[in-house]
Formats: sequence, structure tokens, C-alpha cells
Amino acid sequence: MNRIITIGREFGSGGRELGRRLSEQLGAAYYDQEILTEIAKRTSLSEEYVRQIVEHRPITSYPIHVGRSFYPSVNPILEQSQNIYAEQARIIKEMAAASDCVIVGRCADYILRESNPFRIFVYADEASKLARCRQRAPEQEHLSDKELRQQMRAKDKNRAKYYEFYTGQAWGDKVHYDLCINTSNSDIRQVVAVVAKLFR
Amino acid sequence: MNRIITIGREFGSGGRELGRRLSEQLGAAYYDQEILTEIAKRTSLSEEYVRQIVEHRPITSYPIHVGRSFYPSVNPILEQSQNIYAEQARIIKEMAAASDCVIVGRCADYILRESNPFRIFVYADEASKLARCRQRAPEQEHLSDKELRQQMRAKDKNRAKYYEFYTGQAWGDKVHYDLCINTSNSDIRQVVAVVAKLFR
Repeated sequence: MNRIITIGREFGSGGRELGRRLSEQLGAAYYDQEILTEIAKRTSLSEEYVRQIVEHRPITSYPIHVGRSFYPSVNPILEQSQNIYAEQARIIKEMAAASDCVIVGRCADYILRESNPFRIFVYADEASKLARCRQRAPEQEHLSDKELRQQMRAKDKNRAKYYEFYTGQAWGDKVHYDLCINTSNSDIRQVVAVVAKLFR
Repeated sequence: MNRIITIGREFGSGGRELGRRLSEQLGAAYYDQEILTEIAKRTSLSEEYVRQIVEHRPITSYPIHVGRSFYPSVNPILEQSQNIYAEQARIIKEMAAASDCVIVGRCADYILRESNPFRIFVYADEASKLARCRQRAPEQEHLSDKELRQQMRAKDKNRAKYYEFYTGQAWGDKVHYDLCINTSNSDIRQVVAVVAKLFR
């Protein structure tokens, strides 16, 4: 069976970089953005639209004042979100079947639960995440710390809601991971050098 | 500076064994029970009494119907608990100053925070913890699963309250640890073999 490592991560924690570098160290495939590209290809939706969908919790109900009996029982946006999720699940299972791999985000830990992946969650304190965001995205330098912090929190809130909607589990709750790594004040290269040892 | 590793752990997670074996692998001192023995020695209290105190949250107030002005303002039990905590903090700092060490429990992560210890938290799902307890403590075989589970939860609840009282932090919350390790269905020897690599 292939070695499968899934990585959940807080925004700004360096989890994505950790995943990418770890895959390089282990000679494993790396999937992150590639999953959205593949969904877009297969569903003929734009990648940007797919991203919009997968970065938000599906809207599950119409406003309460809309009489249900006058409308079709299917909510088209929810349906599309669920179709995209189903496609994502298919793609992730194909990827995991193809070779050793590191998969970032996308509920992969849950989707692949029967393949017993090694589930990592990466997190950090807010000051570290803020500093990492500043370093990585100079185009956001017009944002104040407060604004950037709000953006970070909103991203994580959406991730949590999406994850919880599809898995029924609390995102970031340590019980759902094999290893939780705090990257506060850490250089991701050094963290990876150490974490890679776990798999050798 | 000495290498200091602190280990917080859920009851039955194998955290104590992990700490002991890790210290052996790393050639570091191991402190757990030894701390209580040393407190008992220095305070002339019995070890059993010290254990009673440190395994429960201090009682912070008299019953509300006791008129405060008629009683001395000091709560003798709280005072004793705080004295024992202060002694414990002194001992732990001495131990950390003496050599490389692994310290299990006792708020050592918090007490030594200025020495920048590597803070591990060990946890597991309830089924694994139950199985581990059964294996380790055959004298409890008269207990039903339900009773043993209640005992385990009560132990952790006391640890959490004690920790939170003295540190102001939530016990087991991943933000306060560098690494959280899930030992569900794992052999602690194998976990240690892997974790020890992190420190080489």
C-alpha cells in the first residue's frame, strides 16, 4: 500500500510549504492546487469557481420565508457543492492509489480514512502566522495587522465549516490527527528536516 | 543549556511510558514520581498526602454561608496546596538546571517556560486508553468498562483542573504544546523509536 500523508493546516502556519518540502524529501507526489485544477477539468467549471465553492461551507437552506412547496426540493448551489465534493473525493482516492503522496487540505484525511493515512495538522500562534503571511504575500502590505488578522481568521473559519460539513468532525481537533505540529517561531525547512525522519 | 522535554498526557495514553523510554533512548534524566518523593522529603509531608494534593484542583473558597469576618482570611488547604506547588516549581527548576531531562506532568511545561522546553502532549482515543489501562493494571479487572472509563475521565478532569488553576491555560489545548502525539493503536516502543529521532 502507498504511503499517504495528509496535512491539515491553519492559514499562515506554513503547512502548505511543509507539505511540499516533505514530499520532495520523501520523493512522494504532492497534491494541493492540483486537485482543484483536476476538478475544474473534469467538471468543465472554471478553476476560480471551483475554488469559491470548496472554500466555503455549502449553503444548506433557502431563507425561511421562501415557501418550500413552491420551489423544487433541490437546492442547486448545495447540489453543485456536493457534486464537486464527490468529484474531489474520487480524484483524491485515485491520487492515493497511484503512488506515495502528500495531500494538503481538501478533507483528504477523512476521504482516505480507510487507507489509514498518516494525518498531520500544522498550526501556530497568531503572531507567527501574521509574520509568515507578511513575508509570503507582499501584495497585502497595504493591509493593517488588524485587517490581515481578520482575513486569516475568516479563511480558517471557512475551512473549519467546510470540513465539518463534509466530515462531521471538528477541524483542527487533535483527536482526528496522528500528529499536531506547532510551527510558531520555526523555520519550516528545519521542521521538515525533522519530520521527514519520522518516515525513514 | 540543557535539553528539556516536558510531557503532558491523558490517563491511559502511554505518555508516562513514552517519557521513560524516551529518556532512556536519549540518555537524559527522567522525572515523574521522583518529584512527589522529593516534595514529600522537603516538606515532611507523606508522599501519599502530597499526591492527594497535587492530583486535585485546590479548593479556593469556604462554603458561602461561613461569615468571612469571623474566620481567618487564609484558607489553610489552599495555602498548603500553594506551598506544595511552590516547592514543586523549585524542584523542577533545579532538575532542569542539573542535566538534560524528560519531565512528565506536574505543569513542568509552564514552570519551565522561560527555559524553552520542548513540550509534548500525548493522547489517544478512549478505546485505546481503556485497553492500555486493562493491560497495565490487572488489579482493576473487577471494574466494568464503564467504571474504568469513569475513573479515567475523572483522572483527566482533575489533571485539567489542577493545570488550569496554576497555569491559567487549558490543559491539552494544542496551542500550548510543540508536538501532540496520538498513540491510538500504537506500540509505545515504536512511537519512541520514531520520536527519539527528532532529538538526534
